[in-house]
Amino acid sequence: MNSGTMLGKASISFSRPVYIQSCASVVGPKEGDGPLKNCFDMICDDPMFGEKKWEAAESAMQKEAAVLAIGKAGLTPDDIRFVFAGDLLAQTIASSFGIAEVGIPFFGLYGACSTMGESLSLGAIAVSAGYGHHILCATSSHFATAEKEFRFPLGYGCQRPLSATWTVTGSAACILSPEAPHPSEIVGSSLLRSTLGSVAITGITTGKVIDFGFRDSLNMGGCMAPAACDTIYRHFEDFGRSVNDYDAVLTGDLGVVGRQILLDLLKEKNIDLSSVHQDCGLLIYDNQKQDTHSGGSGCGCAASVLAAYILPRVVSGFWKRVLFVPTGAMLSKVSFNEGESVAGIAHGVVIEHISKETEV
Amino acid sequence: MNSGTMLGKASISFSRPVYIQSCASVVGPKEGDGPLKNCFDMICDDPMFGEKKWEAAESAMQKEAAVLAIGKAGLTPDDIRFVFAGDLLAQTIASSFGIAEVGIPFFGLYGACSTMGESLSLGAIAVSAGYGHHILCATSSHFATAEKEFRFPLGYGCQRPLSATWTVTGSAACILSPEAPHPSEIVGSSLLRSTLGSVAITGITTGKVIDFGFRDSLNMGGCMAPAACDTIYRHFEDFGRSVNDYDAVLTGDLGVVGRQILLDLLKEKNIDLSSVHQDCGLLIYDNQKQDTHSGGSGCGCAASVLAAYILPRVVSGFWKRVLFVPTGAMLSKVSFNEGESVAGIAHGVVIEHISKETEV
Repeated sequence: MNSGTMLGKASISFSRPVYIQSCASVVGPKEGDGPLKNCFDMICDDPMFGEKKWEAAESAMQKEAAVLAIGKAGLTPDDIRFVFAGDLLAQTIASSFGIAEVGIPFFGLYGACSTMGESLSLGAIAVSAGYGHHILCATSSHFATAEKEFRFPLGYGCQRPLSATWTVTGSAACILSPEAPHPSEIVGSSLLRSTLGSVAITGITTGKVIDFGFRDSLNMGGCMAPAACDTIYRHFEDFGRSVNDYDAVLTGDLGVVGRQILLDLLKEKNIDLSSVHQDCGLLIYDNQKQDTHSGGSGCGCAASVLAAYILPRVVSGFWKRVLFVPTGAMLSKVSFNEGESVAGIAHGVVIEHISKETEV
Repeated sequence: MNSGTMLGKASISFSRPVYIQSCASVVGPKEGDGPLKNCFDMICDDPMFGEKKWEAAESAMQKEAAVLAIGKAGLTPDDIRFVFAGDLLAQTIASSFGIAEVGIPFFGLYGACSTMGESLSLGAIAVSAGYGHHILCATSSHFATAEKEFRFPLGYGCQRPLSATWTVTGSAACILSPEAPHPSEIVGSSLLRSTLGSVAITGITTGKVIDFGFRDSLNMGGCMAPAACDTIYRHFEDFGRSVNDYDAVLTGDLGVVGRQILLDLLKEKNIDLSSVHQDCGLLIYDNQKQDTHSGGSGCGCAASVLAAYILPRVVSGFWKRVLFVPTGAMLSKVSFNEGESVAGIAHGVVIEHISKETEV
């Protein structure tokens, strides 16, 4: 099949939609106490997820999201062709001890907090090329593993500046397929469709690493906003579209500080994104009540908001077309301690409502 | 285009070859003193590669390999559609501070030492689907960054058991394309072709994470051999081929210890690989003279041996078809210190000589 068209320098428009057949989100207690509490598939009251170590907790959570998404599509792990997954931890151990255990051929990714955008992009490329009838895309983050990995021991009680974000304890997984889901055929399934239609990925714009020279690991929004700006700007150029072509443009985890920088940077390019922009990091917590400062962050932030909030709105037809732009900050504690800057990356994914009349 | 066929549960046979138009290898002084010393594109006498920090040294080396491969193909970074790259360090900082700086849309990978197999697999998928006329696949490792990341400070002078491998200071990059290279057209290029033809990827078998319960981070060969066995076995099953269909099966970095385990495991499945098996970790050093114990390892081991030794043998027609199987050990210092086992993964890539009569 001629499966898509290359646009500009970094975009692909898929000639046939890549359907998201099912999705699942699993979060911790703090996320389950936030504004989206009624939207998640599973809220675990125990932030250890029944395990004895934080890393094992994150692995368990990611595995649970994957198994849920597979089950909701009426499938077994044996039906899944490839997994595209990653996380924030060194050597992506949350994924290699979690989802990888499910025994599916595995492509490990590292895109910092943009990982859900990277996994959906690569999953969509594989599906559109005819290389998989069902492909699993997943990611996760956990507040305690991320603090341990990047910042200070929790017991140290470090004071957090107002620009700091709170890493989401959450995971989500999606099943991609060249076919729209037909729920009536599968007993017990819970597929992603409404009476009006389904939801699909119709294009991607792949991010570049953009380094503005920021060096503050407690202001990740500022570090990532230039990358989000670059990807969104190139997306509009490559697709010949404007703000008016989207019901929403959702960045991953810029938070209060990063959102303002993004809007300012785009204004310099004569793009006013304010009317359609939302940030997953500002949707998942009530910053005032939950003491989360600039907002939520982490791979699990964009991913769980996608599964819990964005996809349901698109499948219902409330939104016809959105641009999902998870944002990642490229640093490690080694690079940070060596005084290196914190570059950003953002991957754009076009998600559209497919009315049942036009479904394949 | 109908770009390939899914075989079995984890393999793809590409209907049109994905050509490797150019490749480049850059290594450190120890590798430049080994048996392949006349095969590398660049041997840097300074293991710091002109930088002040080990991580920056690895980034500089990876960037150099990428720029060399791009130049050998007669291209500029602007001609490259996507980069698929990763490394061993936490949050893959060698790649995000190295190759990512080149300003090409970037997919970050983590496959431990199997990363070259993962990047070639995903690059080949993208090229075969028509999503890029030139795609860059790269990886690197550095002895000093890896020891710091996974084991002991160098100054500590830790004694190494005989099962330990020596992480290769090396990087390599390849340019993939749907078209065979035509060197006469490009002045100053150094494309990967001979008077007889060229070299291409014709199939892949994607690895699963295989955990045999090994817990010894100083016996990585033992940890990875079961994954190599699984991928090679499934590859023969999926493609309906046997040992006789390959001139060589080259694993990434099993070393002396892992190689024997692999041969034993395959023998239990009635496959005698001994006549065609080679291991990149046993090719890059003279273990006796260079005190490298079980052999070489690291992402840069399989990658630099691919560029320096394997691809030249295939392009010349000395080998008609080989299976390249980089092997990775999935661990971090956190998972290791928490007593977790070390699982393995291996990605198989079929590399064939394409005679000029059959080139596209």
